[in-house]
Amino acid sequence: MKLKVRNLPIGTGDVVVAVLRDKDATRLDLLPADRVLLKYGHKQVVATVDIIGRVNGATKKDHKKKFICCGEVGLFLEAQYVLGTKSGDVIEIFSEKKPASISYIKKKLEGQRLNKGELYAIIKDITDRNLSETEITYFVAACYLNELSMTEITYLTHAMVNTGNVLKLPQRIVVDKHCIGGVAANRTSMLIVPILAAAGLTVPKTSSRSITSAAGTADTVEVLCPIVFTLSEMKHIVHKVGGCLVWGGAMSLAPSDDKIIQVEHPVSLDPTGQLLASIMAKKKSVGATHVLIDIPVGRGAKITDMKHAETLKQKFNELGRRLGMKIAVIITDGSQPVGNGIGPSLEARDVLWTLKNSSRGSILLKEKSIKMAGIILELTKKVPKGKGINLAREIFESGKAYEKFVQIITAQGGKEIRPDQLRMAKKSYLFTAWKAGTVTHVDNGIMNKIARIAGAPHDQEAGVYLFCHKGTIVRRGDKLFTIHSDNPERLKYAIEIAKKTSGFEIG
Amino acid sequence: MKLKVRNLPIGTGDVVVAVLRDKDATRLDLLPADRVLLKYGHKQVVATVDIIGRVNGATKKDHKKKFICCGEVGLFLEAQYVLGTKSGDVIEIFSEKKPASISYIKKKLEGQRLNKGELYAIIKDITDRNLSETEITYFVAACYLNELSMTEITYLTHAMVNTGNVLKLPQRIVVDKHCIGGVAANRTSMLIVPILAAAGLTVPKTSSRSITSAAGTADTVEVLCPIVFTLSEMKHIVHKVGGCLVWGGAMSLAPSDDKIIQVEHPVSLDPTGQLLASIMAKKKSVGATHVLIDIPVGRGAKITDMKHAETLKQKFNELGRRLGMKIAVIITDGSQPVGNGIGPSLEARDVLWTLKNSSRGSILLKEKSIKMAGIILELTKKVPKGKGINLAREIFESGKAYEKFVQIITAQGGKEIRPDQLRMAKKSYLFTAWKAGTVTHVDNGIMNKIARIAGAPHDQEAGVYLFCHKGTIVRRGDKLFTIHSDNPERLKYAIEIAKKTSGFEIG
Repeated sequence: MKLKVRNLPIGTGDVVVAVLRDKDATRLDLLPADRVLLKYGHKQVVATVDIIGRVNGATKKDHKKKFICCGEVGLFLEAQYVLGTKSGDVIEIFSEKKPASISYIKKKLEGQRLNKGELYAIIKDITDRNLSETEITYFVAACYLNELSMTEITYLTHAMVNTGNVLKLPQRIVVDKHCIGGVAANRTSMLIVPILAAAGLTVPKTSSRSITSAAGTADTVEVLCPIVFTLSEMKHIVHKVGGCLVWGGAMSLAPSDDKIIQVEHPVSLDPTGQLLASIMAKKKSVGATHVLIDIPVGRGAKITDMKHAETLKQKFNELGRRLGMKIAVIITDGSQPVGNGIGPSLEARDVLWTLKNSSRGSILLKEKSIKMAGIILELTKKVPKGKGINLAREIFESGKAYEKFVQIITAQGGKEIRPDQLRMAKKSYLFTAWKAGTVTHVDNGIMNKIARIAGAPHDQEAGVYLFCHKGTIVRRGDKLFTIHSDNPERLKYAIEIAKKTSGFEIG
Repeated sequence: MKLKVRNLPIGTGDVVVAVLRDKDATRLDLLPADRVLLKYGHKQVVATVDIIGRVNGATKKDHKKKFICCGEVGLFLEAQYVLGTKSGDVIEIFSEKKPASISYIKKKLEGQRLNKGELYAIIKDITDRNLSETEITYFVAACYLNELSMTEITYLTHAMVNTGNVLKLPQRIVVDKHCIGGVAANRTSMLIVPILAAAGLTVPKTSSRSITSAAGTADTVEVLCPIVFTLSEMKHIVHKVGGCLVWGGAMSLAPSDDKIIQVEHPVSLDPTGQLLASIMAKKKSVGATHVLIDIPVGRGAKITDMKHAETLKQKFNELGRRLGMKIAVIITDGSQPVGNGIGPSLEARDVLWTLKNSSRGSILLKEKSIKMAGIILELTKKVPKGKGINLAREIFESGKAYEKFVQIITAQGGKEIRPDQLRMAKKSYLFTAWKAGTVTHVDNGIMNKIARIAGAPHDQEAGVYLFCHKGTIVRRGDKLFTIHSDNPERLKYAIEIAKKTSGFEIG
């Protein structure tokens, strides 16, 4: 069937969409979400169909002028760019079969195991934008409810790696680390990477931006230097200084993962199989051979019970073995924020103070990072068992880690800056202890929320600064935390929320 | 935040959508699928957010002219019609919480039972277009994988009924029937409704159009008379002639069902709980007190094994009991098409021949319909047990059923027409037996497919006509079936397909 193009000013950023009027769709025997092949000269593209009917309340004239009419096809940006059409051009439309991967998704929904080829087909079609959001949603739901076996997770990981870019480094040993999210101010990567690189290891670290927390590692590093690089630029930086702290989002490392995360968001799902594959695929994509996984556990963290953490630990170990990687997994205290600052600039300042061994640095952040770096040093056999933590501490306290950190941010196009030179929001509001006692809880979720309402991470200078952690003995009126924000409305709203539930408990 | 409206020429027919540029979304701390409140003067509406980024390959000028820019908001038709905006108007945007029903969907995904209020909230939000396709998809997947309990199915059915229109009839007894789909030429409703109405019962029958078969009851009735009515028009017809055969799609009876079916389509899912609730909600909505459910079973049907059919039967009985309805369930032979014609006009002609007791009528269709009508007559206690089939046969063979049928189509605005006056496609192609033997299989799925390729149901006159059924003894060269289509390309393609797999087996 031939239809006249109407270019639409919107895109999905993803799947190619063509909009048809109901009558034309009927003629082609199409239902919503069916596929069509669009042909314009020698160019062609497969699109998913959106079908629109008569608009209630619209006149015939309205229809003709404003909306997609019979005989017309509305093209989203993605289709326009492949076909090179102008409004008014005539293109041909044919109905097209659905991708085979949909039948594999159905199979998984029905509780059957998927083989290597089937999982690859699904991930390839997600990567190539051949599956709609609804179809990907069924895949995620199926994996949530019919848990993936270890074999399936291994295939899934390989499929994610093989449908994206891969970093190839000459080194025999390449180290990496990952922390399961949910804990505020947990910026260990910014300390561990320089320690390991200073010890002579290769650490091509990629990080993500915050999705629902007050700052991701990428957001925090960005306060100090650029973080968006191509894969070859990243390779160059790692070659030069031994490590990097870049944003993983622009390099197409296991790119299917981003789309899967996108459909998980509306109901905040995170099936274990996908979590494992997602993390390990990113590590495999940068060529990591030795990896440390940190699972923070506790009230207010993503993982709240120890049994769940232990199961996850076993699965990481098993998946690492199957992928031919050396894995260490630690379960850490996730029941409160690690550093003091929460929000990009506040966290960046913490990192700098800590790396410079300043008394204003965060002891919790320092000790956790040294411990984790030590484990990686032992995992790579750089030092004998039991000696890792000593080497890590020596590198840290001697200033070599700070020196390496400066090299890394300089290699990424930043400059050395004194922590007190970093700009913070000028307006703040102090919360003090309402009674004397011991701090018994500082809630990650609530602190993240307050910092986000204050403006973090988009407003780098906004956030929360903690004066004490769990176990601190306070007198009435002692400082607990401040909220920072230069946006008066946001500050006011954050204060209101914090007055209701501050996230602090004093026992 | 204030943004300038750009009215877009498309709609979803469903959820209200607003399109923002990525930078504006960031400023509002929004992710795709988050909700916003749009305010224009005194009017307001909650919309789901679509976020678009910079378009690869587009120039700055392109962006400004063609696409949604920073400071702009693109409104789909649904939002335009509620707010009454013109392009260029300025509206206010606020971020809005997600509906609580999303947390109930999550709960179901996690395997927990939902209570009455939670299921109502989900169905209400589906009906009111507050849930996106992805969110509804999670609900369907959750119900598929964590099967709904009988209590949940009952709540779900009530919720579907209570969020739509309801037909209120004065009669104490209102009868209805439903057949689980998948069997071709299964037009029993068009015979059963007149038999029952002629017996003095009230039969407010609604039917659906075909989705994936060659004709639904609504498509077939439409060959003879109008089928689209409002609820009060339907009530008037039933009042006048005791029954009707109308399309259920336009009357908002259990309307959430249509949206659920829409997200089931991409992966052809049909969770048992939803199937039960969907069918029984439609029956409850028209006020049915006595209902017969037909479950056809066999190779090529929707339900292929007897055990599954028996389970379903039990569940229908149980659900009927809980809804306070009298239910009979029969399991019938679904291993081949029932009538001879497949396609709207061919099926309508079969119905007329059969109702007129013509020798060209379908014996299978007649006998199945008389049996089913008999069961309903007994269920209502209109006749004693064992006497239903006799009364049904008497009404049928005396011509009273045909007379009532003419009354019904006349009441719906049609006219009596002789079966041989119905227009059929002029071009046809005959398939004959390639060997002597007994017909051992006529495949529903393949016959539906051939008839659809020939043009059915959108081309009413196209389809397939069967000259024999299972058990017929044929000589080589005997007529098996003809394909009818006036579209040469479609006819050619249907013949090609049928030559590969005709759906007939001769043993």
